[in-house]
Amino acid sequence: MSESHVSAQQKAVEEDLVNRVLASFDNCENPRLKQVMQSLTVHLHDFIRDVRLTEEEWNYGIDFLTKVGHITDDKRQEFVLLSDTLGASMQTIAVNNEAYGDATEATVFGPFFLDDAPKVENGGDISFGAAGQPAWVEGTVKDTEGNPISGARIEVWECDEDGLYDVQYGDDRRTARAHLFSDEQGRYAFWGLTPVPYPIPHDGPVGQMLQSVGRSPVRAAHLHFMVTAPEKRTLVTHIFVDGDPQLEIGDSVFGVKDSLIKEFKRQPAGTETPDGRDLGEQTWAHARFDIVLAPAES
Amino acid sequence: MSESHVSAQQKAVEEDLVNRVLASFDNCENPRLKQVMQSLTVHLHDFIRDVRLTEEEWNYGIDFLTKVGHITDDKRQEFVLLSDTLGASMQTIAVNNEAYGDATEATVFGPFFLDDAPKVENGGDISFGAAGQPAWVEGTVKDTEGNPISGARIEVWECDEDGLYDVQYGDDRRTARAHLFSDEQGRYAFWGLTPVPYPIPHDGPVGQMLQSVGRSPVRAAHLHFMVTAPEKRTLVTHIFVDGDPQLEIGDSVFGVKDSLIKEFKRQPAGTETPDGRDLGEQTWAHARFDIVLAPAES
Repeated sequence: MSESHVSAQQKAVEEDLVNRVLASFDNCENPRLKQVMQSLTVHLHDFIRDVRLTEEEWNYGIDFLTKVGHITDDKRQEFVLLSDTLGASMQTIAVNNEAYGDATEATVFGPFFLDDAPKVENGGDISFGAAGQPAWVEGTVKDTEGNPISGARIEVWECDEDGLYDVQYGDDRRTARAHLFSDEQGRYAFWGLTPVPYPIPHDGPVGQMLQSVGRSPVRAAHLHFMVTAPEKRTLVTHIFVDGDPQLEIGDSVFGVKDSLIKEFKRQPAGTETPDGRDLGEQTWAHARFDIVLAPAES
Repeated sequence: MSESHVSAQQKAVEEDLVNRVLASFDNCENPRLKQVMQSLTVHLHDFIRDVRLTEEEWNYGIDFLTKVGHITDDKRQEFVLLSDTLGASMQTIAVNNEAYGDATEATVFGPFFLDDAPKVENGGDISFGAAGQPAWVEGTVKDTEGNPISGARIEVWECDEDGLYDVQYGDDRRTARAHLFSDEQGRYAFWGLTPVPYPIPHDGPVGQMLQSVGRSPVRAAHLHFMVTAPEKRTLVTHIFVDGDPQLEIGDSVFGVKDSLIKEFKRQPAGTETPDGRDLGEQTWAHARFDIVLAPAES
């Protein structure tokens, strides 16, 4: 039954209920909290009324959320996966990172950042032994006026060729993550790994949801960046790999933006490396990512 | 920042994201599941966009849901409390129980029903020793044509004078709950307890939410009914107590409907009881609740 077939009397009953719930927040002394709770009420009730949610479906929803809660612990955050796969995380990023000039676009943060990643020098290797095809990534950090930003802190992290981040191995390894700083001309460069697609954890209720609706749990291949500099808006983003078939299938968390798709140009084994590193018989990739930071509070 | 100040370019970015999430459900083979997920997507994104949800608030929300999940176990259902206190449970009841003639209105089911409550004869005592002022509750069960319904199964349950249901004591007691059947003229009667207001469990995240927004966790005093009869729509409802001050303050789960407020007429000690029961020096109450069942599938 769609809402269009609902009688005027029934609509009045439903709207009266919404108004009573809204009024229950009238005494909230925090105006922002009041606004958020009242908006949540309106949209939650709109959802229930629009789909004419059945009591069986309501029960299913309660049971689903209970399972999401019970699989969540200090290492597994299924509510974040749920938010990610409904695009809610990305929409939150969107409303908080409005386009500013040609500043680099933001995308999702993801659950695998660590704030104690090792420092490498400009041109250093962030892989720390993680397996994968080496990739030389370089670029500049500038402001929206085109001025280079020296000393910008660049955090980078990614999965290995098996699609796993270091923290997913359950040991103490710290691999495929590091931080470095841009030089006096705003330049940076490092050796990392050519990103590969990997599934988000999909052995829980969110994975079951994706399967039920015919969706892939796989994320498009990407390399994470977080870039901070004084008086600049912090940039949390990824770069994606041009030609990755998952870009067509769809990223499971909706993180892709066209401006963030970069060529990881494959270099035959033996091709001279930018810093003279000898990779022997290994192929490698070469990518460029020029970063533009918006002013803070923009 | 309200949505009205959002630039056309930014709106386009946000709407493009919503459309990509909607399209991700295109391959869902279950049309109802697809409809529910797409509607959920629209309303969830509308909420985030309307309030311009901050990343800090998003984190708070994830943390709140995590706490709701972790306090939930086989005895405590905090997601149901959350749904109840946002009026979502009552709205689900509303969309599934449209008014039908003068059929009795439905309200929330609540978490304290047990399907193995003892049977009592018509006129019996459902309290089984639970403390409280005795109440004689009587009425009829009829269809919407005014015909009496004999043999209707009437489940009744309520809290004791301390505001606790039997199951909340953590022992094996089965008190203040029973089932009985209407007689050949559709009549029923039982001794129960005069309902008292009580708080929903409020020592968890939902209780903290209510406190933060200045709301009372207290439910208006009520007596639960579930009435079933062949070819009739099952009625899940309560009766409330006329004069209960909580009716003015507001029921914490929005269950009150004017048609369900009944007089529990207080009888001085020594007043003759309908069935001759001797209550000694105890006052008692007399309430009437005539029940009308809608046809099934209405």
